Amino acid sequence: MRININADIGESYGKFTIGNDSELMTLIGSANIACGMHAGDPSIMVRTIGLAKEHGVSIGAHPGFNDIWGFGRRQIRMNPKDLEYLVTYQIGALQALAQAQNAKVTHVKPHGALNNMAHDDASYAEAIARGIKAADPNLIFVANAGSEMTKAGHKLGLRVANESYIDRRYDDNGKMLSRELENSVIKDPQQAAEHVLRILDERALVSVSGKRIPAEVDTFCIHGDEPTAVAVATAVVAALKQAGIQITPLPELIQ
Amino acid sequence: MRININADIGESYGKFTIGNDSELMTLIGSANIACGMHAGDPSIMVRTIGLAKEHGVSIGAHPGFNDIWGFGRRQIRMNPKDLEYLVTYQIGALQALAQAQNAKVTHVKPHGALNNMAHDDASYAEAIARGIKAADPNLIFVANAGSEMTKAGHKLGLRVANESYIDRRYDDNGKMLSRELENSVIKDPQQAAEHVLRILDERALVSVSGKRIPAEVDTFCIHGDEPTAVAVATAVVAALKQAGIQITPLPELIQ
Amino acid sequence: MRININADIGESYGKFTIGNDSELMTLIGSANIACGMHAGDPSIMVRTIGLAKEHGVSIGAHPGFNDIWGFGRRQIRMNPKDLEYLVTYQIGALQALAQAQNAKVTHVKPHGALNNMAHDDASYAEAIARGIKAADPNLIFVANAGSEMTKAGHKLGLRVANESYIDRRYDDNGKMLSRELENSVIKDPQQAAEHVLRILDERALVSVSGKRIPAEVDTFCIHGDEPTAVAVATAVVAALKQAGIQITPLPELIQ
Amino acid sequence: MRININADIGESYGKFTIGNDSELMTLIGSANIACGMHAGDPSIMVRTIGLAKEHGVSIGAHPGFNDIWGFGRRQIRMNPKDLEYLVTYQIGALQALAQAQNAKVTHVKPHGALNNMAHDDASYAEAIARGIKAADPNLIFVANAGSEMTKAGHKLGLRVANESYIDRRYDDNGKMLSRELENSVIKDPQQAAEHVLRILDERALVSVSGKRIPAEVDTFCIHGDEPTAVAVATAVVAALKQAGIQITPLPELIQ
Repeated sequence: MRININADIGESYGKFTIGNDSELMTLIGSANIACGMHAGDPSIMVRTIGLAKEHGVSIGAHPGFNDIWGFGRRQIRMNPKDLEYLVTYQIGALQALAQAQNAKVTHVKPHGALNNMAHDDASYAEAIARGIKAADPNLIFVANAGSEMTKAGHKLGLRVANESYIDRRYDDNGKMLSRELENSVIKDPQQAAEHVLRILDERALVSVSGKRIPAEVDTFCIHGDEPTAVAVATAVVAALKQAGIQITPLPELIQ
Repeated sequence: MRININADIGESYGKFTIGNDSELMTLIGSANIACGMHAGDPSIMVRTIGLAKEHGVSIGAHPGFNDIWGFGRRQIRMNPKDLEYLVTYQIGALQALAQAQNAKVTHVKPHGALNNMAHDDASYAEAIARGIKAADPNLIFVANAGSEMTKAGHKLGLRVANESYIDRRYDDNGKMLSRELENSVIKDPQQAAEHVLRILDERALVSVSGKRIPAEVDTFCIHGDEPTAVAVATAVVAALKQAGIQITPLPELIQ
Repeated sequence: MRININADIGESYGKFTIGNDSELMTLIGSANIACGMHAGDPSIMVRTIGLAKEHGVSIGAHPGFNDIWGFGRRQIRMNPKDLEYLVTYQIGALQALAQAQNAKVTHVKPHGALNNMAHDDASYAEAIARGIKAADPNLIFVANAGSEMTKAGHKLGLRVANESYIDRRYDDNGKMLSRELENSVIKDPQQAAEHVLRILDERALVSVSGKRIPAEVDTFCIHGDEPTAVAVATAVVAALKQAGIQITPLPELIQ
Repeated sequence: MRININADIGESYGKFTIGNDSELMTLIGSANIACGMHAGDPSIMVRTIGLAKEHGVSIGAHPGFNDIWGFGRRQIRMNPKDLEYLVTYQIGALQALAQAQNAKVTHVKPHGALNNMAHDDASYAEAIARGIKAADPNLIFVANAGSEMTKAGHKLGLRVANESYIDRRYDDNGKMLSRELENSVIKDPQQAAEHVLRILDERALVSVSGKRIPAEVDTFCIHGDEPTAVAVATAVVAALKQAGIQITPLPELIQ
């Protein structure tokens, strides 16, 4: 059995450093690289592409709202056409920088507030899907399992990877609990490992109230910015390996 | 005989409108489209690509410093590696948006202060050339005739289009007189037409002091933001046609 | 009888010019000057302050979301504390530039999407009110009549000016109809004049369905960016004068 | 005998954290607080003002070029009038946020590339001085000893604090050696302490070649971003105290 693990990477900006990119790179199969709008800049993108290549990690675009101050975590209401083009813009920028290193962008994962809004909002989900398809119809759309994004991806004929999170609890609709809520983030490595194995075992997300939301998860996302992130991810990866599950780059997993 | 005429296009930004794009499109062979750093945004880029296609105008990237407030006209000293990646980033963004309309980016022309600095500064000129080559080695580098940019382009094996301006006077080094100087901008349509024909006839730029700087000009640039721009360009185009010279998109001109 | 007329002014940015500032200045009593976040820059602020002084127009801050691309018209969800400080920041910047010309900032009017969101959202309305009070407790808060903003202003002991629009129709809750809706904007000068006189006469907004929402309007806002804006405003001002109503700067009107 | 020590503080931005603010606050007499253009944002400014108050540290504005990506370290050529207003804008924003906490901005220290350019360039130095005076003529201008800035400050009647650096070596013109040069930054705490005491003792900067450039230094700047910064600053402060020199906020020092 094979599974993908992805993480948001390359979210520094100019002199501002954030995250644990080099540690995470050793744990993941695929990297979602920030594209200059919420974080990342051309030079950091180049460095991150190089790092991904070094580790045999597949490369994805991580487009976000154009909001450095808010780190793409502020919800922004905008015209879906503007959003579509903003997504293609970011993917294109990364594609050119990747190609310059003989690398290829193979997936796209929306960032932060954009990802949250598009979970429920079909107009945003479809704008993202159109933006992806315009850049390259072979790109894999990494989308929250059960969200409007998976629907939009399938509708446009994109390859879709169903995503869940190694460290986040769910509500009865299969949506992540808000970070504001206590208990929303799993900080204990052992609990996170059990959480991930249970999702795979049950082929479902299990909400905090115990509800089972069926989901065939292809890829688990690690959040790099929690102080506990590396420890949690390390435990999850170890548990997966022990269960005989192989961490695999997305292009080999999603056909 | 054939010649190219190019202009900077798509330099609006969000709600802020600038330039005479639809009028200029009828006069030029090639459009330099702003890529979101000094002007332009993804939606304006999409609209401008569409407009260029409609008019059979070839599409180029017009990368600038990341400086919306300064409209890319403030000189910025930065690391040449950062500049190189900033150039590739902008080209890549335009490439993806162009491809979404079955169009292709075929040339690159640096904007404003970046263009001015790279005229004399080999480290900037070479950074731009590397940034172009990384995005696509077949791109045509539109570069001031006699500048460090043409040298850098040739050095890297890029196709280079030697550029001059229909409305600007030159100093003895073949560099445009600063806009600050009276007389630097030719505002009279008839004078501009004579200026252009003389450059072609003499195969040289002629400085204000009368010095002849040999130059085989492939493309003339129109500045769209002078109030006299459209009138001047119209007169130049008419004079060229009358002289039997055909205005041609860059990819057909530069092999 | 006296009334104020205000308009959003100084919304150009760098080389990007927008609006009809010099014409509007002759019609209004008070100017809402953009403060660099959605539009405006330090140099434009200086020029606009000077223009207001010349015309005897009182000076206000027009804080918006930090979103040049969106011109402050994209709704952004942010932490109310961050919003509070963002408001004070913008007012302070304008205060210093005004003082340098021996002028004084006497009111504050939120811009665009911020104004719309704070109409209904008490947390935003109160954040704005706190941000105003922090900068200067004597500032007049120009707030949509009947909105959460007027409540928040009164709660904090600010002077509040109840605002309505000369060119916008209302729903039954006294909120402006969305620009998306046909008929939301009054473009006919005569109709706008009647609309304004009726609000004053009835001491109420009258919705499109005919509902009367009591409102003692102190100030009417002109939108400068409609092509019909100057004609509409001119007709309204003429009608007010003919009715013996004097257009007055806010500080003389709101005690 | 009394001396001031200052440091650049509050240079984080949104989710991006930089520097050792809380440690530096215990060592300095005066804080140069970033004002949102090269770093800092309204919320970080508020937090930093609070931290300075807590430590009895006097508050200054640290205006820079509008360049978050470049962290204000890229040289930008701009119109001196635009620069003047950009400086007043930033000071005003900080003044309002400070006043909201019953604190007062008492000095101004230009940041990064702006500071470097204004060292030699009288038009920049004078623009900064005018920008400071416009915001408040009682502000103390913290300026590199022997620079165009000290001249400009005196010319405009500002109070000027002559500044030197605890960790930087000088050339024969009394300008800091570029960071590019090996040996330009003093990383050894003991050497830094000797360096500072020598400047005070000799009443002069001593260049790397041994040249003595007379200078009555009022304030020493700590750079917070070197990894060795806290250790170096701690040693310097200890050495000053041992020599009976008292670290003093600027307003008590500069009359």
